Amino acid sequence: MSDPFVVVGGDAAGMSAASKAKRDDPDRDIVVFEKGEWVSYGACGLPYYVKGEIQSLEELVSVTPEEFREERDIDLRTGHEVVDVDTADRTVTAEGDAGTVVQPYDHLLIATGAESVVPSIDGTDREGVYTLGSMSDGKELREYVARARDDESFQQPDRGPACRYLEDCTGPVGVVGGGYIGVEMAEALAANGFEVNLFQRGDRVLKGFSDETSEYVADHLRDEDVALHLDADVLELAGGDRVEAVVTADDRIDVEMVLLGTGVRPRTALAEDAGIELGDTGAIATDSYRETSAPDVYAAGDCAEATHVVTGEPAYVPLALTANRHGRAIGQTVTGTPTEGGGIAGTAAVKAFDVEAARTGILDHDAAREAGFDPVSETVTAKSRAGYYPEGGNVTITLTADRDSERVLGASLVSEYGEGAVHRSHAVVAALSEGATVADVENYDLAYAPPFNTTWDPVLVAAKVLSGKME
Amino acid sequence: MSDPFVVVGGDAAGMSAASKAKRDDPDRDIVVFEKGEWVSYGACGLPYYVKGEIQSLEELVSVTPEEFREERDIDLRTGHEVVDVDTADRTVTAEGDAGTVVQPYDHLLIATGAESVVPSIDGTDREGVYTLGSMSDGKELREYVARARDDESFQQPDRGPACRYLEDCTGPVGVVGGGYIGVEMAEALAANGFEVNLFQRGDRVLKGFSDETSEYVADHLRDEDVALHLDADVLELAGGDRVEAVVTADDRIDVEMVLLGTGVRPRTALAEDAGIELGDTGAIATDSYRETSAPDVYAAGDCAEATHVVTGEPAYVPLALTANRHGRAIGQTVTGTPTEGGGIAGTAAVKAFDVEAARTGILDHDAAREAGFDPVSETVTAKSRAGYYPEGGNVTITLTADRDSERVLGASLVSEYGEGAVHRSHAVVAALSEGATVADVENYDLAYAPPFNTTWDPVLVAAKVLSGKME
Repeated sequence: MSDPFVVVGGDAAGMSAASKAKRDDPDRDIVVFEKGEWVSYGACGLPYYVKGEIQSLEELVSVTPEEFREERDIDLRTGHEVVDVDTADRTVTAEGDAGTVVQPYDHLLIATGAESVVPSIDGTDREGVYTLGSMSDGKELREYVARARDDESFQQPDRGPACRYLEDCTGPVGVVGGGYIGVEMAEALAANGFEVNLFQRGDRVLKGFSDETSEYVADHLRDEDVALHLDADVLELAGGDRVEAVVTADDRIDVEMVLLGTGVRPRTALAEDAGIELGDTGAIATDSYRETSAPDVYAAGDCAEATHVVTGEPAYVPLALTANRHGRAIGQTVTGTPTEGGGIAGTAAVKAFDVEAARTGILDHDAAREAGFDPVSETVTAKSRAGYYPEGGNVTITLTADRDSERVLGASLVSEYGEGAVHRSHAVVAALSEGATVADVENYDLAYAPPFNTTWDPVLVAAKVLSGKME
Repeated sequence: MSDPFVVVGGDAAGMSAASKAKRDDPDRDIVVFEKGEWVSYGACGLPYYVKGEIQSLEELVSVTPEEFREERDIDLRTGHEVVDVDTADRTVTAEGDAGTVVQPYDHLLIATGAESVVPSIDGTDREGVYTLGSMSDGKELREYVARARDDESFQQPDRGPACRYLEDCTGPVGVVGGGYIGVEMAEALAANGFEVNLFQRGDRVLKGFSDETSEYVADHLRDEDVALHLDADVLELAGGDRVEAVVTADDRIDVEMVLLGTGVRPRTALAEDAGIELGDTGAIATDSYRETSAPDVYAAGDCAEATHVVTGEPAYVPLALTANRHGRAIGQTVTGTPTEGGGIAGTAAVKAFDVEAARTGILDHDAAREAGFDPVSETVTAKSRAGYYPEGGNVTITLTADRDSERVLGASLVSEYGEGAVHRSHAVVAALSEGATVADVENYDLAYAPPFNTTWDPVLVAAKVLSGKME
């Protein structure tokens, strides 16, 4: 009997791989080591838990440890930290409450995820400074919100009035970082009555999106009474035991708490110590089957690189779908069906109060040029439904293409929440994954009816206008 | 100076061609003959006008005749019916109030549209029997609704309570045909208090969609108190001067009015009389530039065929986007930039009360086999947003592919209104236009965030499940 398929890390990539491998080969022994107690959880839901729209952390768990063990017959060992991988001996060493285990493997998956980046400034260790990377982070933040609102068991009604209109609400707070987490947490905190100060180092929020999307979202954040501090170089989180102020080069803003949404970095120490190669992005390098430089050792999820479908180059974009998809592919590969998990397009979506936005592909012109393209972009604002239809708004789309090949490189879309910026981005993802040209997109026979779009859907309008610019 | 570019028919295809040609070559003389008084109108909006969500027919007009004449410098002659095309002399003959005009052309576009099919049964000429193909049809229907409600200037508030909950509303009425028009008009009439009887000859509504979509919509129609008569062979519209009952093989249902939503057929008489070839579908045959069998004579919109992107064969799917797109392409072609307008995918969308649905490509297995494919389909129902997110519902997707090539052939999607079935169909249109395989789609890096989908968007779930079925 061969050694088991061993997985390090019990979240999206790890549990997808373990589940798929077991499904495809029920006789295969599968051992998963997870440092914490939570597995297979939707960290993307944490802002909504903190906001109060989700009432328990358990709701974020798609499959419980018991279900993995009992229903899926996976040897899941929570509370076990893997401290060493020996690729010569083909073993991992894990430490748990019951002591140290040395576990041989046939195939190994490193799915150690990412960790929140804490900026190297003074005061990040003060009380009242939070990150939002893990379930326990989420728990602590929600407890903070409940305490601050003097309501230990607060419940927010679905779609009810935002709590920020309640008189007993409180503030001010600081959010450092204007990426997804920063923007989502600004909403979560504002909805609970906090005066939110959002500090962004650069000159716009959501910097992976187009300028126009960033501006649209920034305007909306201001409309929702978020104090937006752009070009704000945070120098210190000042205070005593507790944080009391965010100090920037220009200003000092009093706050009662700070949420750091300053990005994540791949957890690669275990792989590095094992002599496994990292890529230029700093994440673990893999081939198209997600195999690392060590034979039969795979890496996937937020600790690993993936291939960008537009550039064909390795990229690091730690998001949930890639982790799931690549985990699943590895589960197939190690059970005898070699499967490439496909590339990534750097696609992301975010809701900010009553606005939705998505981005995909290569938008930044410098990045496009570095990848060998001659980028040209156009931004259009088009009606989200027929002009005469009694609902609707606008969708603003930035579309980027290569002037020479006319290939679509990327897009950024923004609209009022419910007006379809995010679901419309799906078509652009399909197009750029297939290497479609702008003229191809212009000619797509997209669905039309007055409650859903104008005769030319905004995606087609963007392609039409960009196509005209390239002639 | 050369003869003008002459257009027959002033709706989507005709006015798109005229406008684009004028924009690309402002010196070009352009003459448009339109039989009626309305041009460039959104017939797709008529059900919402009858419903009362749109207050005037003028709102459906995107550009007025005056604007075409004065701002766009197009010689638009409304009230002129073209009665003859002479492709040898390169002239058209038009009759208007001022007499007969013989107009030479350099290039000619036939954009005569489609007309409502009136079934060959007794009683269709009785009062109270309507079709909904033209603006005047819409006006008559709205007047009927206002009279029946004894409210000549009825206004329905945006998003207010449906009028069918008003006590002074009336009924019953009959809708013959369960396609888009039938379903949309069932909603429009029910919203105004009419008891709606929907008669469908076959065993399901929306027969171009998947069985599962049809069933979902049918269930919803019944929930909304529409009396659905399936497999109903309507034999006669009985009555005196006015219609009084719909008589089927099995039943006789009293009605106060009947709306015929029994499809359309291309208006081809003018082209046929001119010796221009029709295709097997009965619509005007064209090449990929929409040129007919007569040199320099083009045809586009609801009177013409187009090439199906999946089968590569001519197809007749009269819808607004194709008319716009092909008209525009012809405008470019006749001004010196030969432009293929692209194919069609048979994509369509419909809203039925609180449900939305879309379809694209080839779904019917017989049709797929006839086109040389070995079709395999799978239907999945997946959550429209993260399970823990406090809103959302389901999307049911039927995906069809070719077993051998694994190429995506078609899809049918349905969800609650607002849960994204229609906008999600855009991705499938892109995929099948690009000849993507099911595995390609499965690996698309689609946008994900909890307010918009699950980690695997329903489109990916459908591809994943269908992919598994084909292994």
